[in-house]
Amino acid sequence: MEIPVVQKVGKLNDEVAAGNRSLLREAGVKCLNLMGSPGCGKTALLEVTLAALREEMTIGVITGDLTTTRDAERVARHTPHVVQINTGGGCHLEAHQVRQGMARLPLSELDLLVVENVGNLICPVSFDLGQDVKVGMFSVPEGEDKPAKHPALLLEAALLILSKVDLLPHVPFKLDVFLKDLAMIRGNLPVIALSATSGQGLPAWFDWLRAFVRGER
Amino acid sequence: MEIPVVQKVGKLNDEVAAGNRSLLREAGVKCLNLMGSPGCGKTALLEVTLAALREEMTIGVITGDLTTTRDAERVARHTPHVVQINTGGGCHLEAHQVRQGMARLPLSELDLLVVENVGNLICPVSFDLGQDVKVGMFSVPEGEDKPAKHPALLLEAALLILSKVDLLPHVPFKLDVFLKDLAMIRGNLPVIALSATSGQGLPAWFDWLRAFVRGER
Repeated sequence: MEIPVVQKVGKLNDEVAAGNRSLLREAGVKCLNLMGSPGCGKTALLEVTLAALREEMTIGVITGDLTTTRDAERVARHTPHVVQINTGGGCHLEAHQVRQGMARLPLSELDLLVVENVGNLICPVSFDLGQDVKVGMFSVPEGEDKPAKHPALLLEAALLILSKVDLLPHVPFKLDVFLKDLAMIRGNLPVIALSATSGQGLPAWFDWLRAFVRGER
Repeated sequence: MEIPVVQKVGKLNDEVAAGNRSLLREAGVKCLNLMGSPGCGKTALLEVTLAALREEMTIGVITGDLTTTRDAERVARHTPHVVQINTGGGCHLEAHQVRQGMARLPLSELDLLVVENVGNLICPVSFDLGQDVKVGMFSVPEGEDKPAKHPALLLEAALLILSKVDLLPHVPFKLDVFLKDLAMIRGNLPVIALSATSGQGLPAWFDWLRAFVRGER
């Protein structure tokens, strides 16, 4: 009895996601769905990205959390085009919530829409939101075992960000294990190692985003 | 159509959890359900705890992950009483999985059973596993906003651990915001700040566990 219901919900989500995708393409907006653990640095990366690319592209942000508007407040220092979605207890964003967020953004003015998913390495992975690409983020203090433990995210992603690399000298992170596991699961996945705090690796991320917005990713 | 199914699954879980609780009480085993983000340091804390309390109490561990046996391998260096549950894609442990784990442990020999839940701040919170208490864990690099963003965990927990405090000098963590939010949501929740790496705060945690096993928590 349970499985048909889950399939029905999934099918409805996929239909709404397809509609989001059409609306975004008509408006000429590229969209990425950013997924990672709670506190892996998604919002911090958005803050430095919005500040750095302000003159080059217009970025809208839809940010998901169970509660609070803290992420949106941080993002709003850098762009007026931000919507906070509160899921209540929901562990991931669904396509209808992104649609509601899109309705509050001036899509025709945007070059890029970033959907910052709820902090969670598991549930968001299987929900299509209408994005062009999914971007996964693991942070150094989470440890080197995240690729092995979360292969589904790696298989879905177009890019993996390894964040907080400024903390490498201070934590027991085995980079060789991280890279070996990653190679076994998805050897061809591009990886950008960066730190929003130190600035290391940010130029490569900005270049990736520029190419993505130009339609080259 | 969806809600009755979810309620039915929840009711079944609660029944199995109640059975787990009875079995554990009959065997004289105290049980805690440890919940936190991916990579917040749950396994690292278990490793130092098992090593430190080896002469004082016999601890069994059931550890949950989507895939891999890496956590169980780490724990198994310190105790033979460890079971790894792989959930496949499941985002939390359920009571029937813990029951299966319990069946593989010598309950009558144990003083304490620690269930290390799947790394996830959201979904595990609402599933009773038959534990005596839930313990929440936030780690310093996740940032000071975790209490405000995850109030449900705070409301369920008997103890909050703030882990990786050795990283405080290296990350922008606003301790005043963390404590203020925590006080607003659950002012009377005990908090132990610790680091499995530096050893800071571990004596307070060991004392808490000793009292818990004696039935004083």
